[in-house]
Amino acid sequence: MEQLKIGLNAARIQAHIEALASLTLPEQPYTRRSFTPLYRQGRELVAQWMQEAGLKVSMDQAANLIGQRPGSAEGLHPIVIGSHTDTVPGGGRFDGIIGVVAAIEIAQCLHEQGITLRYPLAVMDYLAEEPSEFGISTIGSRAMAGALSPEHLRLTDPTGRTLAEGIREMGGAPERIDEARREPGAFALSLELHIEQGPVLEEAQLPIGIVTGLVGIHRAQITLEGEANHAGTTPMRLRHDALAGAAEIILALEALCRATNGQAVGTVGKVENAPNASNVIAGRTDLVAEWRSVDPVLLAHLARRFEAQVREVAARRGLQLSYSPLSDTEPVQVPPAVQHLLTQTCAALGLSTLALPSGAGHDTNHIATLAPAGMIFIPSRGGRSHCPEEWSEMDAIVQGATVIGQALLAFDQNQQP
Amino acid sequence: MEQLKIGLNAARIQAHIEALASLTLPEQPYTRRSFTPLYRQGRELVAQWMQEAGLKVSMDQAANLIGQRPGSAEGLHPIVIGSHTDTVPGGGRFDGIIGVVAAIEIAQCLHEQGITLRYPLAVMDYLAEEPSEFGISTIGSRAMAGALSPEHLRLTDPTGRTLAEGIREMGGAPERIDEARREPGAFALSLELHIEQGPVLEEAQLPIGIVTGLVGIHRAQITLEGEANHAGTTPMRLRHDALAGAAEIILALEALCRATNGQAVGTVGKVENAPNASNVIAGRTDLVAEWRSVDPVLLAHLARRFEAQVREVAARRGLQLSYSPLSDTEPVQVPPAVQHLLTQTCAALGLSTLALPSGAGHDTNHIATLAPAGMIFIPSRGGRSHCPEEWSEMDAIVQGATVIGQALLAFDQNQQP
Repeated sequence: MEQLKIGLNAARIQAHIEALASLTLPEQPYTRRSFTPLYRQGRELVAQWMQEAGLKVSMDQAANLIGQRPGSAEGLHPIVIGSHTDTVPGGGRFDGIIGVVAAIEIAQCLHEQGITLRYPLAVMDYLAEEPSEFGISTIGSRAMAGALSPEHLRLTDPTGRTLAEGIREMGGAPERIDEARREPGAFALSLELHIEQGPVLEEAQLPIGIVTGLVGIHRAQITLEGEANHAGTTPMRLRHDALAGAAEIILALEALCRATNGQAVGTVGKVENAPNASNVIAGRTDLVAEWRSVDPVLLAHLARRFEAQVREVAARRGLQLSYSPLSDTEPVQVPPAVQHLLTQTCAALGLSTLALPSGAGHDTNHIATLAPAGMIFIPSRGGRSHCPEEWSEMDAIVQGATVIGQALLAFDQNQQP
Repeated sequence: MEQLKIGLNAARIQAHIEALASLTLPEQPYTRRSFTPLYRQGRELVAQWMQEAGLKVSMDQAANLIGQRPGSAEGLHPIVIGSHTDTVPGGGRFDGIIGVVAAIEIAQCLHEQGITLRYPLAVMDYLAEEPSEFGISTIGSRAMAGALSPEHLRLTDPTGRTLAEGIREMGGAPERIDEARREPGAFALSLELHIEQGPVLEEAQLPIGIVTGLVGIHRAQITLEGEANHAGTTPMRLRHDALAGAAEIILALEALCRATNGQAVGTVGKVENAPNASNVIAGRTDLVAEWRSVDPVLLAHLARRFEAQVREVAARRGLQLSYSPLSDTEPVQVPPAVQHLLTQTCAALGLSTLALPSGAGHDTNHIATLAPAGMIFIPSRGGRSHCPEEWSEMDAIVQGATVIGQALLAFDQNQQP
């Protein structure tokens, strides 16, 4: 059977991205935080576009916005495509958004071009993927995967509102959140288009990244307590300098991750120092350290090695240590058949690809527990993301959307993987 | 001529220290910040005690509170003794205060015991020695040394008040501040009793420290600008992590100063990191680094070596560097004759001594430009200072005050140094 071709409308994709970008806090472009009126406004637009694309629009109990298109064959589970439309503070016009806009555009082209799929199709705008004011991220996809607990629903934002209340305001039904849960195998395939949010594709000058896996993330909260003493009157040999200990720990994590030759990254991005005065030796320093890898064995190895080094630094410097793991998510492997489908699709379109891990978490982390799930990346200018400068070229977005659309057609025709 | 003995009243010293300690912000013991009503209240007490000690009380244009006692000989410049009565936030009942209380007690005993000195005596309560809300310290002694500039007088505190206004509120005459200035040689001798504010005397189990010199302090403001990128999607080799660069700099300064074998100390006590989020590579890190030594050659050597290392770190990591010296005070040497006077006085009293540098700045830094100036230290429990736990034993305070009193008598009788 000859391969169908999907002809996406680049102008419409651009118009939709720009329409969402215009819904921003005026003082902080491009910011549309989850659980705000702006976010609801954006999703009303998304729902309207879904309808124009011939999709049946609904919202599940977790306030995931879903546009459905029936398939021609009996008894097949749907293919899901999509991403999210919320942003971090300070934004980004592309992170998540292009995945939703591309999915709607694919549905609309199927609709306009009269293409019937054997599989049902569901276009997803997952609720609140970015870290929310309730302290957790990927809320909608988490609920679908059955990983949103009653404790999560009781989390509060700085105004005192609970997550349950937030979900209700977004149109969900938190008291029946369990009904949003899907069983493993509930979807035949999940595909997500996303910006890379890193510099690798741009540096390699390649248009499409085939995601091999999504990193697991380990985080630890580290508190070092020394002695806050006068910076002039305390000899070097009698000091217990919490900040100097923290400096060793920051460099230890960097060295450990550098030594993995690209198989892991590690970062201390957050430091709080007390009393934080230029003439007082630091008495207490708090750090958050995190390390990521798609290799679960390496991840655990780094956890052991790093903790041992932290303990050695604290003991040698006479610092009191509190070391608390904050989170511990395991890596997700993209099934080889899904990677193969995406790679073959790119080859057929004449697009070169690079296989690379996703260093960030995505809704796909949760959906991967329900379906064979894959992602593709398009280049991010300068590797920038989560900032107003976040940028991807329109041509690249249309190419990425085309890859998702063609992969979906290929899967539908070949029943693979 | 036989050595006169001064018999100090320990109960009165204790009562005076406790009276000042009771003048504190109730919510933050023991806090009596310069230029506040509490500080003025404390100085009214000090003025009253000066009067009771037979001193003629006055205030100079810089709001230094001065108690004067005439001498019997003609044409001699006064001996000055004293310190300060303001505190840092979070306080201390002893830092500065014991120097003022001891000086008043010495004057009162001379008065009560009918001892006449050949030299005039001036008891000093220098204005605002601690870092003030105007951003500078040692304001009164600085003005005496002619180092308080018109720019200083225009500095403002967080309420917008100028230092000139603050000095006027304290009883000074800022428009005639030049009249507070003394000429080099204006004083025959200056002696200051102070708590060590460090752990050295306690560790050595010695009661009196003879200060050999006061450290010079170099400070530099260092700003590293890298690239704030996603902690998951940016490979280690493509990072420009400002905080990791800062960590290297913190450890470089520590290593440089450790290698001086006690001849210098160096500290990074202050760090500000941005955006300071656990999942974002630091884009900008600000540090304040300082190093201190009594050896001016070593101080300059450290400055050169440290700046070179900072530049190397920034260049190697691809970080933009701004390196700005903040202050650059040179060390003060205590004249050997003054050290000898104090050591001999201790020996005569049966007190063991340790020669040590002052790692902190004091009013004596400025007064040393006007007179042969010396200091003695008494032990600080646990080396703690600038905190509510700051403590020195009453016996040690009385011993220290006795050393000052006896040294003053010895100087007066021997006309040395």
